[in-house]
Amino acid sequence: MDREKFRKYGYKLVDWVADYLETVEKYPVKSTVEPGEIKAKLPSSPPQHPEEMDRILEDFEKIIIPGITHWQHPGWFAYFPANNSPASILGELLAAGLGTQGMVWQTSPAATELEEVVMDWLRQMIGLPEGWAGVIQDTASTATLCALLAAREKVTGFKVNETGFEKPLRVYASREAHSSVEKGVKIAGFGRKNLVYIPVDDEFAMIPGELERAIEEDLRNGLQPACVVATVGTTSSGAVDPLRPIGEICQKYGVWLHVDAAYAGTAAILPEKRWALDGAELADSLVFNPHKWMLTNFDCSAFFVKDPQVLTRTFEIHPEYLKTGVDAVVKNFRDWGIQLGRRFRALKLWFVLRTYGVEGIKKIIRRHIHLAEIFRDELQQDGRFEIMAPVYFSLVCFRLKAGRPEEVLNELNRHLLERVNSTGKLFMTHTTLDGKYTLRLVVGQRTTEERHVRQALEIIKEKAGELLGSS
Amino acid sequence: MDREKFRKYGYKLVDWVADYLETVEKYPVKSTVEPGEIKAKLPSSPPQHPEEMDRILEDFEKIIIPGITHWQHPGWFAYFPANNSPASILGELLAAGLGTQGMVWQTSPAATELEEVVMDWLRQMIGLPEGWAGVIQDTASTATLCALLAAREKVTGFKVNETGFEKPLRVYASREAHSSVEKGVKIAGFGRKNLVYIPVDDEFAMIPGELERAIEEDLRNGLQPACVVATVGTTSSGAVDPLRPIGEICQKYGVWLHVDAAYAGTAAILPEKRWALDGAELADSLVFNPHKWMLTNFDCSAFFVKDPQVLTRTFEIHPEYLKTGVDAVVKNFRDWGIQLGRRFRALKLWFVLRTYGVEGIKKIIRRHIHLAEIFRDELQQDGRFEIMAPVYFSLVCFRLKAGRPEEVLNELNRHLLERVNSTGKLFMTHTTLDGKYTLRLVVGQRTTEERHVRQALEIIKEKAGELLGSS
Repeated sequence: MDREKFRKYGYKLVDWVADYLETVEKYPVKSTVEPGEIKAKLPSSPPQHPEEMDRILEDFEKIIIPGITHWQHPGWFAYFPANNSPASILGELLAAGLGTQGMVWQTSPAATELEEVVMDWLRQMIGLPEGWAGVIQDTASTATLCALLAAREKVTGFKVNETGFEKPLRVYASREAHSSVEKGVKIAGFGRKNLVYIPVDDEFAMIPGELERAIEEDLRNGLQPACVVATVGTTSSGAVDPLRPIGEICQKYGVWLHVDAAYAGTAAILPEKRWALDGAELADSLVFNPHKWMLTNFDCSAFFVKDPQVLTRTFEIHPEYLKTGVDAVVKNFRDWGIQLGRRFRALKLWFVLRTYGVEGIKKIIRRHIHLAEIFRDELQQDGRFEIMAPVYFSLVCFRLKAGRPEEVLNELNRHLLERVNSTGKLFMTHTTLDGKYTLRLVVGQRTTEERHVRQALEIIKEKAGELLGSS
Repeated sequence: MDREKFRKYGYKLVDWVADYLETVEKYPVKSTVEPGEIKAKLPSSPPQHPEEMDRILEDFEKIIIPGITHWQHPGWFAYFPANNSPASILGELLAAGLGTQGMVWQTSPAATELEEVVMDWLRQMIGLPEGWAGVIQDTASTATLCALLAAREKVTGFKVNETGFEKPLRVYASREAHSSVEKGVKIAGFGRKNLVYIPVDDEFAMIPGELERAIEEDLRNGLQPACVVATVGTTSSGAVDPLRPIGEICQKYGVWLHVDAAYAGTAAILPEKRWALDGAELADSLVFNPHKWMLTNFDCSAFFVKDPQVLTRTFEIHPEYLKTGVDAVVKNFRDWGIQLGRRFRALKLWFVLRTYGVEGIKKIIRRHIHLAEIFRDELQQDGRFEIMAPVYFSLVCFRLKAGRPEEVLNELNRHLLERVNSTGKLFMTHTTLDGKYTLRLVVGQRTTEERHVRQALEIIKEKAGELLGSS
């Protein structure tokens, strides 16, 4: 593809994306294709000869688009958001065009140094202490794994890296912690039986006293505590583990504290939500995801550590072919995580932070939280629903109750979710809280407005009415 | 940024990228900034209020560009390439615009199914047996870690995941294996002392007999062999571990064989280079990187496994909030690796494979290999240089010898590399082979032509002459 063709199709795709972002509401949020349907439309062998871009884009529209679940739809209320923004898309385009790979400083000094700078901007925005250093990871799963590994090495004097596990090391997280903690514990070799689930209070937050009890019991049994993962904004309900008392316990026992604020960390840029990270200075590491709720398209996960040397000592490797003359004076981000190669993700983050400014981002986050509160209040006024957890941020957990006996509620709500999602107007997902099937509505798309939330309310109430009438 | 502004700046950046790709030769390949120079030009706090895109793009040109090392420069001969292509950039733009996240099938069926299809295309292209399944990972480091984890679980009946390490497990790789093997061994909890380095022959390839000896010795000592990592195209010299005898040994002892073909795997699409993967059907997993040498911009690493169930059982997690109604009949790629969230990387790969076609890609790979051979032959004809390893693909290892005594050669070649790179016309890196400082020239950029290689030769010879004259 020569320059003129690239220009032509580049314009065409810019137009396509511009229109898409504006008109995404015309699609059902969740793809309605059946398993195997897309695959069946694609050739089973690669093309031997070049094909025209027009032909490919035609297939994109005809075959791929029906199989897309539209994360950027204003009716996206599922999982957590992964919102993007025009500025972020442009940043990604430019990064792809440069095709630079920032594994070490010299392979693009600007990629490393811009990352240092924008990560420090984020540090200030969420109120972490000076001295903490940041690095972009792909996902919070990876960041949490990095924290577990650094904790593992710190508590053993870097001996697992050298000689492997010699005795069990223990990790603690609340029952409500994200599945990535279990996954990380398995990957890092701790073994799942060494992940101790700490009970939660009736707002689904870790009970610090129970954590301390578990640590003491382990110590009595000769087991070595290594890491506590506290969650700020759990996936199921948005619960907030209290960082200050947890942090004090971790300091008392010399245990690494990692804070998983993947979703809710963004809210800490608002003074009125800063309480959620109160005590974070007692932690050793923290992750939050600009690719969830800060307009930066996936992937971009912000990982911070108090003592970067522990992290780099955990990951460092020194093959001759990666040595450079400036290694002693620069950051080589290859030693800050699992992967060697690194995309230039700081660029899109820089574009986002500058085009919106901190105030612009605050305004959007406040709007999302406000819309979630409207949703909660309206459901509360409709006596048929039950709110299942406090709404601290933009996630509302609820279920249809309508005076029905407990035995039928799980099934009833499963049907409600199916009927609501099948309208194509919105997409919600579910969880269980205390064993109860619970619907989750998260507001977080850049373009979600009050009318989308009111439409969601209307549909939910309507489908609830149908179900109750027919049940 | 509204639709019209996005369109305006989208066009502008498409133009910028089009011009960049065409005129990248005007920049020095390797950035010439000093450590800290970029950082010093950036504000230490985030902007509070929105800034204009024009202003940001001005800073991009003025501050960022001087700090870019130009991986897409036709004079890029360093490390391994990370070549991109117009089609790939367009695919990345579209993926960023869609902002879809394919962690499970239902969050975009097309993302999952297109990935299945294009990965099967790649499988056919490099000649892996039917039945092997592919998944896109970010990097070969991650893929190799996944292989080590799957091997760890398979050999212990999935017990490390459950209860942690109970006895040492052993991993084998040649002395020339990539540093990601050591890194993965540490991350997965094996401990570096359980990574057994197998001696290599005088072409830097693993000696199968030495592998068997090491496995037998471990078995005699009650140590459990878990995984062998064989490399096809080592980073230092492009050496090829012989897969067939290694695979036979692995089968004999029931050890997982992972093939790291990150760089050279691409060459296996050429019938005349297929020998490099001879015996791969005896392996359990293999990785090669379309983001290195197949025109697909970073990141896109192709990871294949013979038995996907071992992989998914290694990684699977079942939180309620991720369950969907179709889990029994679809692939949920979240269970095929470390991360939960996943970008839609199959899109750019699809664009690349279709716009070039298999024949188009073959042509480019053949050209690169041919240019490397020209480079080797010309250096060989100039009596002052020594070729340090066989040239199987597009990597040439050499040093200036010129009858000088061994003691001064390392320093001499270090200076040669510095002088050559400081011209800004090309960028090479180094390694050591048998303790000898060695220069590496890899041909792999999409736009590298004979004149760039001839220019490199000229500069290298000229700088060698200067050095020899002045020494």
